[in-house]
Amino acid sequence: MNKIEKEISNGLQVLPAFPLVLVTVAQNIMPAAGFHFYSFAPQPSVMVGIMPEHQTCSLINSYREFGINLPTKEQIEIVRVCGSTSGKNEDKYRLSGVTPFKGKHIASYLIAECPVNLECSVVYEIPYPGSHRWFIGQVQAVHVAPEYSRDQALTYWSKEFRSMGEVLALR
Amino acid sequence: MNKIEKEISNGLQVLPAFPLVLVTVAQNIMPAAGFHFYSFAPQPSVMVGIMPEHQTCSLINSYREFGINLPTKEQIEIVRVCGSTSGKNEDKYRLSGVTPFKGKHIASYLIAECPVNLECSVVYEIPYPGSHRWFIGQVQAVHVAPEYSRDQALTYWSKEFRSMGEVLALR
Repeated sequence: MNKIEKEISNGLQVLPAFPLVLVTVAQNIMPAAGFHFYSFAPQPSVMVGIMPEHQTCSLINSYREFGINLPTKEQIEIVRVCGSTSGKNEDKYRLSGVTPFKGKHIASYLIAECPVNLECSVVYEIPYPGSHRWFIGQVQAVHVAPEYSRDQALTYWSKEFRSMGEVLALR
Repeated sequence: MNKIEKEISNGLQVLPAFPLVLVTVAQNIMPAAGFHFYSFAPQPSVMVGIMPEHQTCSLINSYREFGINLPTKEQIEIVRVCGSTSGKNEDKYRLSGVTPFKGKHIASYLIAECPVNLECSVVYEIPYPGSHRWFIGQVQAVHVAPEYSRDQALTYWSKEFRSMGEVLALR
């Protein structure tokens, strides 16, 4: 297979899409594609990568916790609104019309309209430098709407919002 | 929206799908869903999470490098074959019928049949403990087949292989 060598940062644009999440801290909301699991055991944990100029990065630093909220593919408009302004100036719950939902383990709000919410306590910040700061959060609780299916999820990469694709095979 | 609280490790199974990659080190191949970018600047880098019992983990430790190869949705069988046996006992290139492809910056082989290949040098291992060991790799080169589109990518989570979904909107 013939290939061309791409300039490296443009080359990263070629990756598949990643889950798009809404990160909530205190009363702020920020969309992020920098999200993954970190560990399944002994303590299930996830990680989130945030650029330091975002208010969310300062808030995670102060509150040592965050919520992960999974929007559905019908909720792109909420994502757009929350991604187009800074929480320094605006109450994004009010602006995007979503409802604050209080979990059991963290003080920060979650988003009632998102069908999946994770409550996470920061246990580590990855010290290796880069464009993003990555925080590892131990998952304290997972709230799921009973009717939720992965088919409803929203993904993002390289300026494209996408739905989930079809199941091709089971492992 | 009514929600139920899930047992936490089962709760993580509810996440959307992540890009499925084939990690190559030396002459070994391993499928992984634990893959993400780490930083865009100053040095574009990615990270990969591997369980320590896998041969790939020892190999990354020794070689301090890895290749990331993106299979297409038509290449699930290659993924299955490489995921069903250990490189301790088998030459997975031979077993899965793929062709070793030598990059420019790392000694490890890449996979010729995968339309995207990243050559990565390990610059950091995240010391926070867990089920997976996460290695950050500075991207040294990106090789892309000119006809490749993200539409061909393969994703995986919670025992499901999926295709990419349709583009819903542009940012």
